[in-house]
Parts: sequence; C-alpha cells; structure tokens
Amino acid sequence: MPQKKKNIAIIGSGLVGSLLAIYLRKHGHDITVFDRRPDIRNIKFSGRSINLAMSNRGWTALRAVGIEEEIKKIGIPLDKRAMHVVGQPEYYQKYGKEGEAIWSISRGVLNKKMIDLAEHAGVNFRFNEKVWDVDLPEAKIFTGETEKSEWKEYRYDIIFGCDGAFSRVRHKMQRRSRFDYSQDFIDVGYKELTIPANEDGSHKLDKNSFHIWPRGKFMLIAMPNLDGSFTCTLFMPFEGDVSFENIKTKPQAQKFFATYFPNVMQVMDDLLEDFFKNPTSAMVTMKCYPWTYWDKVALVGDSAHAIVPFYGQGMNAGFEDIFVLNQLIEKHQNDWEAIFGEYQVSRKPNADAIAELSYRNFMEMSSKTADPKFLLQKKIEKRFAQKYPEKWIPAYSRVTFSNRPYAEALALGDAQEELMQKVMQLPNIERLWDSSEVENKILSLLAE
Amino acid sequence: MPQKKKNIAIIGSGLVGSLLAIYLRKHGHDITVFDRRPDIRNIKFSGRSINLAMSNRGWTALRAVGIEEEIKKIGIPLDKRAMHVVGQPEYYQKYGKEGEAIWSISRGVLNKKMIDLAEHAGVNFRFNEKVWDVDLPEAKIFTGETEKSEWKEYRYDIIFGCDGAFSRVRHKMQRRSRFDYSQDFIDVGYKELTIPANEDGSHKLDKNSFHIWPRGKFMLIAMPNLDGSFTCTLFMPFEGDVSFENIKTKPQAQKFFATYFPNVMQVMDDLLEDFFKNPTSAMVTMKCYPWTYWDKVALVGDSAHAIVPFYGQGMNAGFEDIFVLNQLIEKHQNDWEAIFGEYQVSRKPNADAIAELSYRNFMEMSSKTADPKFLLQKKIEKRFAQKYPEKWIPAYSRVTFSNRPYAEALALGDAQEELMQKVMQLPNIERLWDSSEVENKILSLLAE
Repeated sequence: MPQKKKNIAIIGSGLVGSLLAIYLRKHGHDITVFDRRPDIRNIKFSGRSINLAMSNRGWTALRAVGIEEEIKKIGIPLDKRAMHVVGQPEYYQKYGKEGEAIWSISRGVLNKKMIDLAEHAGVNFRFNEKVWDVDLPEAKIFTGETEKSEWKEYRYDIIFGCDGAFSRVRHKMQRRSRFDYSQDFIDVGYKELTIPANEDGSHKLDKNSFHIWPRGKFMLIAMPNLDGSFTCTLFMPFEGDVSFENIKTKPQAQKFFATYFPNVMQVMDDLLEDFFKNPTSAMVTMKCYPWTYWDKVALVGDSAHAIVPFYGQGMNAGFEDIFVLNQLIEKHQNDWEAIFGEYQVSRKPNADAIAELSYRNFMEMSSKTADPKFLLQKKIEKRFAQKYPEKWIPAYSRVTFSNRPYAEALALGDAQEELMQKVMQLPNIERLWDSSEVENKILSLLAE
Repeated sequence: MPQKKKNIAIIGSGLVGSLLAIYLRKHGHDITVFDRRPDIRNIKFSGRSINLAMSNRGWTALRAVGIEEEIKKIGIPLDKRAMHVVGQPEYYQKYGKEGEAIWSISRGVLNKKMIDLAEHAGVNFRFNEKVWDVDLPEAKIFTGETEKSEWKEYRYDIIFGCDGAFSRVRHKMQRRSRFDYSQDFIDVGYKELTIPANEDGSHKLDKNSFHIWPRGKFMLIAMPNLDGSFTCTLFMPFEGDVSFENIKTKPQAQKFFATYFPNVMQVMDDLLEDFFKNPTSAMVTMKCYPWTYWDKVALVGDSAHAIVPFYGQGMNAGFEDIFVLNQLIEKHQNDWEAIFGEYQVSRKPNADAIAELSYRNFMEMSSKTADPKFLLQKKIEKRFAQKYPEKWIPAYSRVTFSNRPYAEALALGDAQEELMQKVMQLPNIERLWDSSEVENKILSLLAE
C-alpha cells in the first residue's frame, strides 16, 4: 500500500521536533516546523542548559534514521563517573561493561546540527512564529506576534506538539474534559557554570568522565564539550541553609565555593559573573494523558512527559518516542488513528516509569548517599553484579545501555530492591557483606 | 488596631464566592464579584447539578456570619440513607446519632439566596463580565467579551479566585514556575435526572432520606427538593459494558432503566427526555500549591481543591476555607501576607485529606460493596461503634458531623482500618463477628 502524503506541522524545533521532522520526511510527508524562538543557529545560548547524556535509546533512534555517525562526531564518550568527594582523592566508577559509555553532547551544538540535517532533508522551518492556539479537531494552528494580535491560520492534516514541558499544544488539550495532568516541581534548582578549556584547547579535567562533586543536599557536575570546556551544573535547594536563596552577593558566592568546591573553583574563570548572570532554573515532573487527539494531534517528548534530569534520560526518552512512533507508522501505514492509539498506550507506562526512576535518583542523591546502610547495599549489589553479570543487571544498565522498556527496568529494579532488603536483614551484614554466605543468599533468593 | 478598608475583587459568584463576599463585607471592605455567566437569579438551570449535602462544616461557616437559620429554611434534613437494593425491601441506615443529619439543598436555590444576601450586605456584582487575564503582582484583572477583544482593566488591593475547578485565576498562577498542579479525572460520569412531585406537591419517596440504588459499578441517588421533587444523579462509567457510551438510543435507555431501576423508573416522568437532554458530566480531583500570591491573590474553594462528590464535602470544604480565612483575618488584622501564608499552610493538608477520603469513597462504592469481607468488617465496626460510641467514631461522622480537621479524620480512620485488619485475621471471624471475643479484641487493640 503506497504511503499517503500528509501535510504535517511540528510545533517546536528542539531536539525532538527536529528528529521527528527528519523521520517524517523519510516517509515522504510535507513537514513544516514552527518555533516561537529565533533560529538557534544564529543566536548565543541561554546559560540554562545541562549537557546532554546520549545513551543507548538515543543512539538507536538516530541510527535507524541514518544519522548516528554524524552525531557521534559532536559527542564525547564518557565511560565512567569521576567522583570528587571531600577528603578523598578523585576516584572513578565505570558505568558499565567494556565499551559501554554515555556521550556528552552540548544541547546547543546538537540542536543546530539536527536542524541542519532536517533542512537538508527538505523540512521547512518557520522560526520566530509563535503558536497561540490550536484547533484540535480541525488540526489548525494560529500564530501571531502576541496572544492578542492578529493571527494567521494554518490548516494541516496532522500536528505534532514537540514544544516541551510547557507545551502550548498540550495546554489546549488540557482544557478539555477528562484530560489527566500533573506538574510537580522539586525543591532543588540548577544553575549552569563553565570550566573553560586550557589555552591549548585541551580539557582541564579528564575528558572521558562524568565529573561529580557530591555534597549531600547539593552537588556540582561537569560534562565535557568538544572545544575543551566543561559545562557544569550546580544543583542546590532553592531555600534553606545552603541554598540559592542564601547566596545573594558575590562574597557569599565566593565563600560558598571556597568552602565546598575549593579545587574546581580555581578552574572556573568567570565563576562569580556566571553565577549571577545565569538564571536559576526549576525542574519539574510533568505527566499527562491522553497524548493524542483522534488522528489529528500528538504530543512527543517533553510535551507528553517531562522528567527531572537525574537519570540523564530526558532526550533519550523523547527520541525513543519517535523510534516507536516510526515502527507504528510502518506497522499501521496510513492509519493514523491506529498509529496514535497504539503510540500512547505503549509509551505511557514507559514514560511514567522513567519519570519515577528519575525522581528516585534525585531522592537517592539528596538523601541516601550519606546513609551507610544504603552505601553498603550498593557495594554488595556491585560486587555481585561484577561476579554474576548475567544474573544481576543493575537498573542503571537496563535504562542506559539497553532498549528494553523503561517499565521493565523499573519492575525488575523493584524486584532487586525487595531481594536486597532481605539480604540486608542478615545478621552481621556489615561484617559479612563480601562473604560467600551473602553471595549464596542472593543466589538462592534469585532462584526462588 | 482599626481594620484598613480594602478594595477587593472576587472572581466567581458561586456558593464560595458569594459567602466570601458576605464575610468580607462584615469586615468593612469594598467587594466586587465578577462572574462570566449571567445572574443565576434570572436563568433556568443547567441540568448538570448534583444536590448539595450541607453538613456540619458548612453550617458552622454560615452560623458564624449569621445566616444559618435563613439557609435552613431552604434545606431538608436527611437523617438516614434509604437503600434500594435489588431483591431486598427498601431499608434505612441512620447517618449518626439522634439529631444528626445532612441537609439536602438545591444548588441553584442556595446560590440565588446567597447572592441576595450578599447584595443586601452591599456587595457589588458584575455579571456577564468575563475575566481573561490576571496580573498577579499588580492585582489587576482584565475583562472583555472574548479572549481577543478589547479588554477592560481593573486594579484591586486583593483578588480572590472563587472560580471553580477550572479557575482562570489559578490558570494564571499555574503558568508560573514552581507551581504544583494536578487534575485527575475518574472513569465515571454523572447525569442529572428528576423525580417530580406528586400532584399535591408532596414527595414520592421518603423526603428525609438520601436515596441510593447501588448497582455495583453504577448507582443512582436521589435527594429531595422543597417543591416535592427529587434531584437524581446517575453515576456510571463512561465506557465499558454498562456505560454511558453504550446507551445511545431511547430504546437502549428504556431497557437499561427497566433492567436495573424498574421501580424508580416509573416515577421519573421525563426520564428518557432528560437522559438525552442533560449532559453527561465528568468528575475531577484537582490539587495545586501554592494557593496564594504574596498578599495579593488567593484561591478559595474548588479553584484550590476540587474533589469528587462521593463524600458530599465539596461545598462544605469550600465554606470551611472561608471560616478559617475569617479566623486568620481576625488574628492577623491587616497583615494579608500573614493571613494568606497561614491560610494555605493550614488548609492544604486538610484539602488533600478530603480529596483522598472522597476518592476512597468512590473506590469503595465501585469495587468493595460486593466484597463480603468488606461488608463484614463494616458490620463489625458498626456494632462496636453503637456499643462504644465514645471509643469508635466512624470517619464518616468525623468528616460530616464535626469540625475537627479533615486530616485528623483521615489519620484516625487509617488507624481504625489498620486495627480492623488485625481483627479480620481472627480465625472464624465470619462466625464470631458479633461475639464478645471480637469485641474484647478491639478493646484491647484500642488500649495499646
């Protein structure tokens, strides 16, 4: 059956919008991408970005549309965490098995590249055009200078909302009855900072590591860029003892970094300027349902499921949406009602799962990393996983280095956790943690 | 300290908006109430109302502002449920102790009365004036014919959003960062139906009862009106075997009522007309936070916390908001930042608690009423409560016939449930349920 050509609008020229455009062009559809912002290729960046960690799911989606190698050129593989713990020398934690890595990519660099690729594929971009309203049953969009100015009306066959966590398209769906929706902010904010390159363009820290300076309730991370710099992110509570609220002056900021991050501070040339120039951003978990309206409108990526960034899966989850959508386009051919129906039913549990996993990682980082029992448990799990890699795949590996559903990773991780709770009840576990007794206990529980 | 007169706008002339207006007038403020709809006193009603069940919290709020007696005149006390179970004669369940009752009041009749009372108190009403935007820090509202027409701008000292579950005022707060929000629809819808009065104006069913026809996944209820009629509500799943979706024609509706409600059907004169004329409405639990913006804007009632109607507490919770707000106005005098701060902190846990209790009642009604174990547990609790009324106050009584915080009712109810789980583990509980053994077990668990 020949594919019927559709006239499709994509709202949002971010990573998800531009990748979806590339995919849909391959199916021969006419694609117009609207974005309320100017072309990212012509502007300087916002100072509110966390570097991306592309992992298996992201690469899978890029590979299937033939642009994996192109994108790998602008990424840097990170095969380990570099831990900068107070009072200890820097040490490393491998992410996975030999050859497994996540890739650090600058959001801006990647987005520019993706828009280039989409444009080459024949996608039409309309930047600086703000969508204010959407007519869902008619698949119409209305754009204009302001909400109250004269609007221009466009009619399409299909509209995709790829316009992020605060999606205008979803906003319209949300006003309908029986649309479930939630947005939950965490009490921690983040701020972008920078470690510039050495004069010779080399990196000031190990460039194949994800650098972490954990400090209990707050932490600093750094991810490398191609130009030798690192994009750093400071995560810290908005309010409270040590908080963004309590750092209002340059001397306060100076003292904060000197106290908690004395070494890294020395390599951040514009630290104090950046700290006060860059915004403090909030993080939200956003869930909603349904994601589609008949065969007319669908939400993809953050507009359908925004998550906190502590599992490094936001973009990967969005790209996987597109990969799945593409499989369904091939399966159901022209039947967009079937495509959208199966898309939302199959993706929703996985989106909820990665939201949960990401939120739990945040809770772990902020409250459990100082708990000796928790750290001991992690040590036992790690030891066991290294000895029996086929019997114990950590949730992190399932999420990061596989394409199995997120919901499966969550369920199997919960089962592992339940098992470990029993192991941690063993008398003298603190002393016996690396004994064969503990090992056999895990083996027998796994066999049950 | 003399109260400083404020110029206050209330958005929404519903029950909460008009009661709040009466309260604030008593404090000497200038009050303007805006409503996008016409004056309810001049229009016929929507066919989408569930009769109200005014209980203790509602009466407390009306009493404190001196209008309890006035409103009692338009209500009918219901001291019991009248159960219409298939294959059994009608039977009654008393709600509480002697003299305890909930009051059936028509939403329309009550709202008209409240607006009359507010107008007499000097409140200024602006009907048919649609608020499209709110400037939170400046406490400005913008009204106009449509979202895109010319707008009129008003500036106030304080704005109250009493504009219901789909509040425009909250909508504006929601677009700000760090505003938590959720809306969750249940899969059951409702439809208003009517049992008219007898020719002599008397009621066709016992008028001091809340009538229930439970049928598992769906049910019909009826509440009396002053004019001899009953407002009935059919609750039924939107989709599925027996569902609104599957009743599309008059013969289908005829068959449905003849099968499940043969007796009541005979007294509903316009049943089939009403069924297709009246809309099928959805029910939502809406939570959000914060409820206030500085000392400028506050949400009250459904705009802050919409709940499903299965505990009969929606209006009561909104009126209690106002009662608490009034206490805080007296406590903090002119300090509206302190008033709003304490208001949201003290009310939020109680709003969450009644949302949870209401949702659980819905779940109980739709899934547990056919579970013999659950029914046995309720029978044991009831027997014990009758014998030891001071030792066992049912959650229903705490919610309905007390002014203690909803959160306390939820917590104590959970403790009772935990205790009863132990009781239900007793061997032969089915046989021993009314024995002194079971009674003593409860007494000893309570003593722990």
